[in-house]
Order: sequence, then C-alpha cells, then structure tokens
Amino acid sequence: MGLLEQTIRCISPRDSAARKAARERIRRLTMPPWALGRICDLAVELAGISGRMPPPVARKMVVVMAGDHGVVDEGVSPSPRDVTRQMVANFIAGGAGVNVLARLNGAEVVVVDVGMAGRDEELVRSGKLLGMNVAKGTRNLRREPAMTRDQAVKSIETGIEIARRFGEKVDVFGIGEMGIGNTTPATAIASILTGRPVSEVCGKGAGLRPDGVSKKVAIIEEALKLHQPDPTDALDILAKVGGLEIGAMAGLVLGAAAMRKPVLVDGFISTSGAMLAKMLCPLCLDHFILAHASGEPGHPAMREWIGREPLLHLEMRLGEGTGAALAMNLVEAAARILTEMATFDSAGISESGPA
Amino acid sequence: MGLLEQTIRCISPRDSAARKAARERIRRLTMPPWALGRICDLAVELAGISGRMPPPVARKMVVVMAGDHGVVDEGVSPSPRDVTRQMVANFIAGGAGVNVLARLNGAEVVVVDVGMAGRDEELVRSGKLLGMNVAKGTRNLRREPAMTRDQAVKSIETGIEIARRFGEKVDVFGIGEMGIGNTTPATAIASILTGRPVSEVCGKGAGLRPDGVSKKVAIIEEALKLHQPDPTDALDILAKVGGLEIGAMAGLVLGAAAMRKPVLVDGFISTSGAMLAKMLCPLCLDHFILAHASGEPGHPAMREWIGREPLLHLEMRLGEGTGAALAMNLVEAAARILTEMATFDSAGISESGPA
Repeated sequence: MGLLEQTIRCISPRDSAARKAARERIRRLTMPPWALGRICDLAVELAGISGRMPPPVARKMVVVMAGDHGVVDEGVSPSPRDVTRQMVANFIAGGAGVNVLARLNGAEVVVVDVGMAGRDEELVRSGKLLGMNVAKGTRNLRREPAMTRDQAVKSIETGIEIARRFGEKVDVFGIGEMGIGNTTPATAIASILTGRPVSEVCGKGAGLRPDGVSKKVAIIEEALKLHQPDPTDALDILAKVGGLEIGAMAGLVLGAAAMRKPVLVDGFISTSGAMLAKMLCPLCLDHFILAHASGEPGHPAMREWIGREPLLHLEMRLGEGTGAALAMNLVEAAARILTEMATFDSAGISESGPA
Repeated sequence: MGLLEQTIRCISPRDSAARKAARERIRRLTMPPWALGRICDLAVELAGISGRMPPPVARKMVVVMAGDHGVVDEGVSPSPRDVTRQMVANFIAGGAGVNVLARLNGAEVVVVDVGMAGRDEELVRSGKLLGMNVAKGTRNLRREPAMTRDQAVKSIETGIEIARRFGEKVDVFGIGEMGIGNTTPATAIASILTGRPVSEVCGKGAGLRPDGVSKKVAIIEEALKLHQPDPTDALDILAKVGGLEIGAMAGLVLGAAAMRKPVLVDGFISTSGAMLAKMLCPLCLDHFILAHASGEPGHPAMREWIGREPLLHLEMRLGEGTGAALAMNLVEAAARILTEMATFDSAGISESGPA
C-alpha cells in the first residue's frame, strides 16, 4: 500500500467529544449566546479537528508549494514563467506578501519546490528551499496531459511527506502556492468538479485583460475536450489538467488531516487542491478550513461544491498563502476565547433570563 | 464656542498626497495589481486619515463607553440592568471578549463610565475606570426623552475629551460599548436615519425571543411617535431616543477625526454613534472605518446609509469593541505591507506585461 492510500486510511472524523466540550465552554463564557458568531464556530472546529480542548494553535506554519506550468507557452499569464523562481527567492528573503502577513500573525513560512522548471540550487543546499521536485514543471495541457498519473500520485505524496515532516512541531498549517500560470489548471479543475462552464469560472488570474481571459477560456475548453478527464477520478483530473503544486497542496490537506492538524486553505488555487483532497477522501473535509473568499469568479462555485463558507472576505487574489496567513489571527482568536475569557461563574455575571 | 463646535471645525478632509503616495507604493510591491484587495484599500485609507506615509499603527486603543438605559424597565433586554456594572468589572479584570481580542492584537482597552446607573467607586479611585459620568443612566425613552439636549452635548464632548486625552499616545482608536438595553436606542436611531420601519431594523439584541422582539419594536415605535425626533438634528435624536455611551462614541469619532487618528467602529450600537457623528460633521466619514458586519438585522441598512462596507463578516453580535479589536490585525497588516513588502525593483522581480 502506498503512502497516499495509507494516509487516507488514517483519516478519521472530527472528535465529537472535543466539539461538545468546546460548545459547552462557549455557552459559559461572559457573552450572549454564541455572540462571537463564526469565531465560536471556528473554536468548535479546531477542537473537533485536533481532538483536544482547548485546541493548540501556538505553532503555525504556512507551506508554499511552488511549481511551473507548460501551458504558460500559450500566453495564459501576463507574467513570464521565470517569476516563479524569482518569487521563490522573494519568499526566502522574507519580502513577499505571505512573509509579511505570516510574520504579523506568528506563522513560519516554508517553501517547497515540488515542480519548478528552474531553481537556485544554492537555496536548496542551504536548506531554505525544500527540494522535492517531482518534475521540472508540467507539460502544456493544451497539447498533452500535464503530467503522468504516477507524477500526480508523487505530487500528492510530496504534500503528505511535508505534513509528516513538520506535523510534530506544528499545530496549524496553512497552504499556499506559487506558480506562474496556475489559475489555468485550477480553473480547469473547478469547471470539471462544479460542472460550471469554463467561461463562468475563469478569471483574470494575475491580471489578464478581457481578451486574454477569452483566450484562456478557449485553451481550457480545448484541453478538457482533448483529454476528457474522468470527473470521478481525482488522479485523472490532476494528471491531465492539474499542477504539481496543486497535487502537493491536496497531499498536505490529507497528510495534516491524518495527523489531526487543522489546515487553512488559502484562495482559488489552494481550494482546487482541497477539492481534489476531498474527492480522494471525503472525510478530510472535517479537517480543513477555507481561509478567505478569493476574488476569482470561480471561487464561489468551488465553495458551494465544498459546502463551506470562508472566514475572510477581502477581495484578495494574491495566493502564496496570504489569506491563510491572515486568517491565522482568527484561529488564534478562536482558541483564546476558549482559554482566556471569563465564565459567568468566574466573573460573577448574571446570566440572561428569558425575555 | 463649545468643545463640540470647535472640534467639528478642526476636521479636515483626508490627505490626498499621502493617499497617492500609498497607492504608488502599492503598485510597486511584488504582487499583481492590487492583489491584496481591501487590505490595499485600507492601507490607502490609513495614509489618508493620518496624513502620513507610511501610516503609524503601532499604538492601538479600544475605548469601551459604558452607560445604562431607563428603557430596560420595559423588558427590552434578557439581561438585568446590573450586568452593565458587572461587565465593566469584567473588562477591568481582563476577562471579557474585548480584552481577549485586544490583547491578541496588541491594543490597550480603556473603559469609561459615561452613563452608568451604578458603578464601583473603588474602580474609579484606582484609575481603572474613567469616571466621566454625565447621568446615572438615561430615562425611559418610552415615557420621556432619554436625556436633555445639554446632556446629549455633554455625552458627545466626553468622547471628544477621551480622544484629546489619549490622542497623543494612540495611533489607531477602536470604539465599543457596554450598556444593557442599548440595542433599543441604536435601533431607534437606525430607523430614523435610514427611514426603514422599526420592524425591519430591530433584532434580538443580547438574545430576545421572537415575542420579545415584537414588544421591543412596539416600544420603539411608541417612543418615535411620542417624541417625534427631528431626523435632520443629531442632537435631538440623541437626546430623545439615544444613549449616553452612543453620544460618547459619536464624540470619540469626531475628536479622533480632528486629530487625524483612524477609528475602527465596532458593530450595531457603535455604528449608530458613527451615524450621529457623520450627521454632525459629514467630513468625519473620511476618518472612520467600519470594523465588521454585525449580526443585527438593521446593520446592512446602516452601512448603506453610511456608504461603507465593513472589513470583517463573522456574524458577531457581542459589541464591547470586539469587532474593532479583531480588525486591528487587518489595520496592522495594511500598514505592514507598505513597509515590509519588497518592490519589483528591490527584489529583482519581472513585472507583468500586457497579456
């Protein structure tokens, strides 16, 4: 049995006793019933995922999975492909959006090469970039499958390995990505799974003009027609029209779920990875949290398919894990109300009566 | 000229040069155009309010204004009146929701007695509760005006005094409140200013049952019929159907605007105070930020009247300044992207071309 199958077998439902204990604690806190709304919900989720009450959240990590995309040859991105490599260097230097927001909220940033076309070997040797390259970028999905089925499995297993490598020293994971062109595979996955036409779920990504978006729609439609991915087979979808970093994010979701570690899923591309994870193991839905509502037009349909609402609505569309890093503050808030807020008894507050 | 008039005269529009400098800086940061969405907008607002680039945000303070309400005699709240005093003690002991969230995000909490019916004199003597009591609670607005016009002015001037007292050592204010029964005056204000029927904007407050909400609607309708507040006169509205803590929050909004300090407005009741501030000086709209969307049904109409969307949507309905405290993290995030994020030049990243 491979690592993927083995991991899926280890995923269990959320812990209902810990959820119940969290709900009961919240009902005793000095506020009207459930008055912190989704922060209360989140506290219950964290207890259920971790199986602990109060849930631990002190050690936070945002994992940025990096990969390149052959379909960039078709002009689907306004940025040159080398920007993947350049931005990875920026992450490691600490100057990118995800670094700023992760620093603010006390999260470590880890960067993984799972599918970069080119990388700075010095960064790998120094340990600053985790070198777990499955392939030097995907192939051009307009012409051929993005990767082999074996590579699809390997990309997922890379994410699982990351979860296993860091899980013992991390309480909450965030997932993010870097890969010029990767809204194209994410859009393809969104269209296949939600059943919506490509034109409905396709957006401007990093900043395409309207004619560029039309071209991107046509390219994705052609790819879907050419490859006919099986909408019931996550590995077939990932191999034919996915991305190596998308597979790795799906794997991290699964690996973290198996270790009972909550995962904050970032935006559009990360959500496509979480959707594949949910296909591979529906139970993993119990263990991840959508951090924010992406500005990409396909994201609402993806959230509907998953059946979850995100925590933040800030019209962000950067990726990298920026939404996950920002939502770490809400995770911390949810945990702290369980531990730091007074109860009616401890503070000597009269409870509400019926009125 | 009184303090209120004097303060209003000191309020100037936001600084367009600082806004422009912020926008230009954001365009150079290593991300697709405006990819952090509302965090980018917020960064521009903070620059425009403070007139400084980068805007200072290190010193944060949430001011909780406390007051009681005669209308509680009518059974408009499920909580006994004494809970105002009990919760003030909880704030000072550090055990309430606002304390937990303010601590998390590095904000100081200051509690002001502007209209409490009863207070612990020891807390005032020790300096932990600021004793600026204008009256020992409002009168029952169903039977008589909540306060005199003079008291209304004094409550606003109390807020202005708080802004002046702390403004030199605070970069960003948050406003919140404590006052059993205070969704009733806030709902009255919301109905008068938005022109919506009371039944549309009235909610369950701290947890009324449906029949309690119906009774609350009838009480507010009676009060509006009895007092006929002039919808163009903020002081008339505040005096007849308002609250002392609501006046104080309006005053803090005005006082902070005069000092070019951003104010995060908390939820339903705080927003009613901000609405009165906007009536008194429309320019102050340039200087406050709605922290979150309250779960009270009247809040969307109030936001529409103001013409602003809040930062957070978390179905919170606690008040106290909890939403303002939580949104402090987004304020800090907005300021930090201006100072900590690399630019295309500094990081050697290729900019997007047209595509």
